[in-house]
Amino acid sequence: MSRFWSDIVHRLSPYTPGEQPAVAHPVKLNTNENPYGPSPRVLAALSAELGGQADTLRRYPDPTSRALHEAIAQRMGVHTEQVFVGNGSDEVLAHIFQGLLRHAEPILFPDVTYSFYPTYARLFEVQFTTIALESDFSIDVDAYRRPNGGILIANPNAPTGRALTLAQIERLLVANPDSVVVIDEAYVDFGAESAIALIDRFPQLLVVQTLSKSRSLAGLRVGFAIGHRDLIEALTRVKDSFNSYPIDRLAQVGAVAALDDVEWFDKTRHAVIATRETLTADLQALGFEVLPSAANFVFARHPDEDAAALAQALREREIFVRHFRLPRIEQFLRISVGTDAECKALIDALKTLVKVAS
Amino acid sequence: MSRFWSDIVHRLSPYTPGEQPAVAHPVKLNTNENPYGPSPRVLAALSAELGGQADTLRRYPDPTSRALHEAIAQRMGVHTEQVFVGNGSDEVLAHIFQGLLRHAEPILFPDVTYSFYPTYARLFEVQFTTIALESDFSIDVDAYRRPNGGILIANPNAPTGRALTLAQIERLLVANPDSVVVIDEAYVDFGAESAIALIDRFPQLLVVQTLSKSRSLAGLRVGFAIGHRDLIEALTRVKDSFNSYPIDRLAQVGAVAALDDVEWFDKTRHAVIATRETLTADLQALGFEVLPSAANFVFARHPDEDAAALAQALREREIFVRHFRLPRIEQFLRISVGTDAECKALIDALKTLVKVAS
Repeated sequence: MSRFWSDIVHRLSPYTPGEQPAVAHPVKLNTNENPYGPSPRVLAALSAELGGQADTLRRYPDPTSRALHEAIAQRMGVHTEQVFVGNGSDEVLAHIFQGLLRHAEPILFPDVTYSFYPTYARLFEVQFTTIALESDFSIDVDAYRRPNGGILIANPNAPTGRALTLAQIERLLVANPDSVVVIDEAYVDFGAESAIALIDRFPQLLVVQTLSKSRSLAGLRVGFAIGHRDLIEALTRVKDSFNSYPIDRLAQVGAVAALDDVEWFDKTRHAVIATRETLTADLQALGFEVLPSAANFVFARHPDEDAAALAQALREREIFVRHFRLPRIEQFLRISVGTDAECKALIDALKTLVKVAS
Repeated sequence: MSRFWSDIVHRLSPYTPGEQPAVAHPVKLNTNENPYGPSPRVLAALSAELGGQADTLRRYPDPTSRALHEAIAQRMGVHTEQVFVGNGSDEVLAHIFQGLLRHAEPILFPDVTYSFYPTYARLFEVQFTTIALESDFSIDVDAYRRPNGGILIANPNAPTGRALTLAQIERLLVANPDSVVVIDEAYVDFGAESAIALIDRFPQLLVVQTLSKSRSLAGLRVGFAIGHRDLIEALTRVKDSFNSYPIDRLAQVGAVAALDDVEWFDKTRHAVIATRETLTADLQALGFEVLPSAANFVFARHPDEDAAALAQALREREIFVRHFRLPRIEQFLRISVGTDAECKALIDALKTLVKVAS
């Protein structure tokens, strides 16, 4: 710490992302990356951008990311003015905290959810109250009927993987007409229903998605929000006061190509879903309790094994899963769905580590 | 506006970047882009990243951008802990405003400077006082001897192009030991002295640079700050509370390659400097007053011609320069240094537009 710091810096609790293993060929199931690469069209588009006119990189990107806005609008069936894009959905969420969630009442989000939310709240001095998940780690939307400055729900939730139905989200919206309701759909394409279908009916609804998971572009950093144009305008005003050019040229080109290839998108996400179901059954056969997942990860605990010890033992075998030292979930492992081979390697390792009831 | 907006959104004054012309082959001298492409090594490194292992894009980038930190530290002769990187120097500046410039006293910056500074100040609720440039548009560092919460100087200044000497910056630092002094060196490689040479002596000094100008990578969005590790820690805490992964994989790879190629860097920046001197002489021959520039642009006014009218007339010829409707500088044009051919096209057009004393 230093006398030169702004006061706020002393009060931050920076987020810790999942480990990037230094080993050559890890079985990396700790950061919910897609086991399959992005559409071949992405690589073709990037190569064309680099090769077609060798000096485009000296030019600023389009500050409005217009082509990307149009691609998202077309794919999601909305108007371009209902779209906001950012440097990953993490940046989009940061702008949402600053631009739409600073009000007199505290915002509400679940006690167990994406652990970046309280970090944003501290950075932007947004008061928050957490609402406990039910004992089965589901969300009771009626628990959000109280005065609030906004509501933030990940659907499917992280790290639990449990999803709300569209009817439950609609119930939440009907009960909260006067504050912004943010649905963070980072994992929605692996098994939940998108609330984008509701945006024309609820002006307070903002849906956030990312190209990092279901479009396999974590390395390019592109996320977006969809909602009423008034909400989008607030985000645009914040963005244009923060960074005119948040999305670089290559990310814009790659993201458009990824959105174009619906066939690849469907093929790879269905492969992930199929592997998830096999992984779930295999974990259950080893005695794990596995929460029902609509995401590209599963959240599991074993009644007889300590989660931290299991994570460490897997790590020694160069198999990386995520373990959170947080209340209520310290005995769970969050396991990203890898390829079938990666999941088999995990299961084979666990067979040597857990006591299986005979 | 909307009842859902945070209060701050109503008070923002978003920055307007230079126009991105929609015409096919503009003479684009309005956004200070480099007329030469980046090092061929950048394109080779990007192609290798895309081709070598087709699925790297599905993986998150290194959240700490370690290789890029090391490349910057080596090039600048500092330690990696003295380096912070961001998604363009605009993002770096935004984090500086939030993390290091929010104090009881207002920050100080010139009345004529990068027009994004007051925009950041409004976004992060940082009070500021502007200090008038001298009548010749130079900066008097002794005018900054007053209580302040920080000082922010672009060197060379924008849009004037005028530079301070290292001795003047040292004088500013000696007079201001108790507040952060930010020197924004976006244009330093075109003719000014970097204050990086002073960071080990002044713990309050933070130097900001970008790869957008002298490394021709505006399209990739990479900027950095160099200073005492305590200042860097504040920025890292803000960054890790805002976005874990601000620099995408391709930007990290491309930036490292650009920093590696010193020969290309020197060749292209010296070419820009040579063209700037020719452009300056040609403008003076047409009757323009041209401020002495240490940047990759010149700031010029004609005693007999209205700057807005000139900019519009040039625009009709698909030649784009920047005109700011701001106090003191509304009769100036800011002209980026292009290739010799682009500058000749500009001069040829101006010959038909301005009255030349015979």
